[in-house]
Amino acid sequence: VDFLKSVTQAVKRIAPLIRETPVQHSRYFSDLTGAEIFFKLENLQYTGSFKLRGVANCLLSLPEAVLQHGVITASSGNHGAALSYALSRLGAKGTVYVPENASSTKLDAIRRYGAEVRVFGEETGQSELQARLVAEEKGIPYVSPYNDIVVIAGQGTVGFELANQLENIDAVYVSVGGGGLISGVGGYLKQLNPDIEIIGCMPENSPVMAKCAEAGEIIEWPVLPTISDGTAGGIEPGAITFEYCQQYVDDYVLVAEDEIRTAMRRFMDNEHMLLEGAAGVAIAGLGRMAKRLAGKRVVVVICGANISRQTLLNVIQ
Amino acid sequence: VDFLKSVTQAVKRIAPLIRETPVQHSRYFSDLTGAEIFFKLENLQYTGSFKLRGVANCLLSLPEAVLQHGVITASSGNHGAALSYALSRLGAKGTVYVPENASSTKLDAIRRYGAEVRVFGEETGQSELQARLVAEEKGIPYVSPYNDIVVIAGQGTVGFELANQLENIDAVYVSVGGGGLISGVGGYLKQLNPDIEIIGCMPENSPVMAKCAEAGEIIEWPVLPTISDGTAGGIEPGAITFEYCQQYVDDYVLVAEDEIRTAMRRFMDNEHMLLEGAAGVAIAGLGRMAKRLAGKRVVVVICGANISRQTLLNVIQ
Repeated sequence: VDFLKSVTQAVKRIAPLIRETPVQHSRYFSDLTGAEIFFKLENLQYTGSFKLRGVANCLLSLPEAVLQHGVITASSGNHGAALSYALSRLGAKGTVYVPENASSTKLDAIRRYGAEVRVFGEETGQSELQARLVAEEKGIPYVSPYNDIVVIAGQGTVGFELANQLENIDAVYVSVGGGGLISGVGGYLKQLNPDIEIIGCMPENSPVMAKCAEAGEIIEWPVLPTISDGTAGGIEPGAITFEYCQQYVDDYVLVAEDEIRTAMRRFMDNEHMLLEGAAGVAIAGLGRMAKRLAGKRVVVVICGANISRQTLLNVIQ
Repeated sequence: VDFLKSVTQAVKRIAPLIRETPVQHSRYFSDLTGAEIFFKLENLQYTGSFKLRGVANCLLSLPEAVLQHGVITASSGNHGAALSYALSRLGAKGTVYVPENASSTKLDAIRRYGAEVRVFGEETGQSELQARLVAEEKGIPYVSPYNDIVVIAGQGTVGFELANQLENIDAVYVSVGGGGLISGVGGYLKQLNPDIEIIGCMPENSPVMAKCAEAGEIIEWPVLPTISDGTAGGIEPGAITFEYCQQYVDDYVLVAEDEIRTAMRRFMDNEHMLLEGAAGVAIAGLGRMAKRLAGKRVVVVICGANISRQTLLNVIQ
């Protein structure tokens, strides 16, 4: 895939729906690590997460007539809220399938912008299968959270902005769940400059892509609960992100739950912004890679801000 | 005073110590008010408040030899932390007088960057008198939090940045305590364009400058506790900010404590950043001025982010 071309196209396409987010130098984390640390603030993206970029690129690549028949997705998190927001901005309709265990906070975030919510199945995998089935039956598009090159190119616009906002980047730390964000950012930046290191950050409790990389194929791996709900869970069989991660991710770093919490507290105390667990994972990754950081210019992607009040209380108390 | 000149000088002088903060459009607050609402994000300033600007302008206007003999101030809040930070960046020393009732969180923020903390008096007024006394005895500079044109010009750089970042501003909402921020921002913007409305926002529980404006002179006014600790308290006799406020503030809006809390929650939920009570006051001010907002382009200055964990818990719970 020519990421330089597909991401550059996405940048123009999604401009009306997204915000170019700031890159901000952090004195505190620079002092802490001996590196020059910058944060790419996707926590300040509309809907509070980078997911809007991929969704916007997908919806805006559809013919208007197709879009007006509605779209379907499955998600209990940021992807669903981003789809709902983008649809409301475009005056179109859509349905988001969610599992029975989805939290009311998350359902509110999806409903808030107007998308219809349908509850199906005991976990996201089941609601995803149902959503795909209905999409096929009705002949309307299914918007994948990560397993779609158009969505991945949308997420890659984070890398495009970075390259324009900051010179001489040595390394970029990105949280990995399904791998859509790191595939887009890594694909774009590596094709631009193969010397930029791309580090994938994951919770020890849900390290699926890292374990797949080790195994050289998509495998199942047991997952435990994690505060990084945004990156939790397995990877679809045949997911195209696996190949991109093999090609563009230099290394993985796994972090413990208490490291994620500490990272979140430090970020809130010193950068004065909210962040979600998935973003804390990338910051925690820095701590584990101390030896590789000294004297380098490093960007950490803060992928999202959506933290429930209860989780926030648990982190700061 | 020629604010255009003194603020423009300050912009160049303080550039090495401060961060130009973003102006960010808010879809949520725009929808809520029917206006085009932008936030000027001084919560993202180093040390988490605009106070660094005034302090930096003051310190950098001192001859190097004077600076190296140290400076003194009195503050239990953002001004003290900003001074401590600026001194550490400049390799200089200083002492911050604080009252006995100052919270440990705030003392930590001051000590963290290396300034010496001295406890004196039962409230800030007393520590201020003592600090001024010691400064005079030792012949070293006292850095006033607001009653100094050099400090005010530093705060005015917020207005300079705004004018360069955003065209056709109709109104700017600014929280008022001692009046340093609104004097600088109002003085600069009004001299640039007299049609820009400058609205001062204050807690009902501590509305001193608004009451002084009504009385036409600096008066004492009883104050109650407020979540907006950053703007609480009286105004020094002879404070130069009184005259600037008379000249440049078009109107005052007073807000209740529950309005401040609601504003803070809405900002955190929708803009995904932390803010302190004093910043909540300016957002709450929008709600009270609904009739004046429709169709206008309005900037709200988010003056700071320093909220203690306990206050944050109280607001979100």
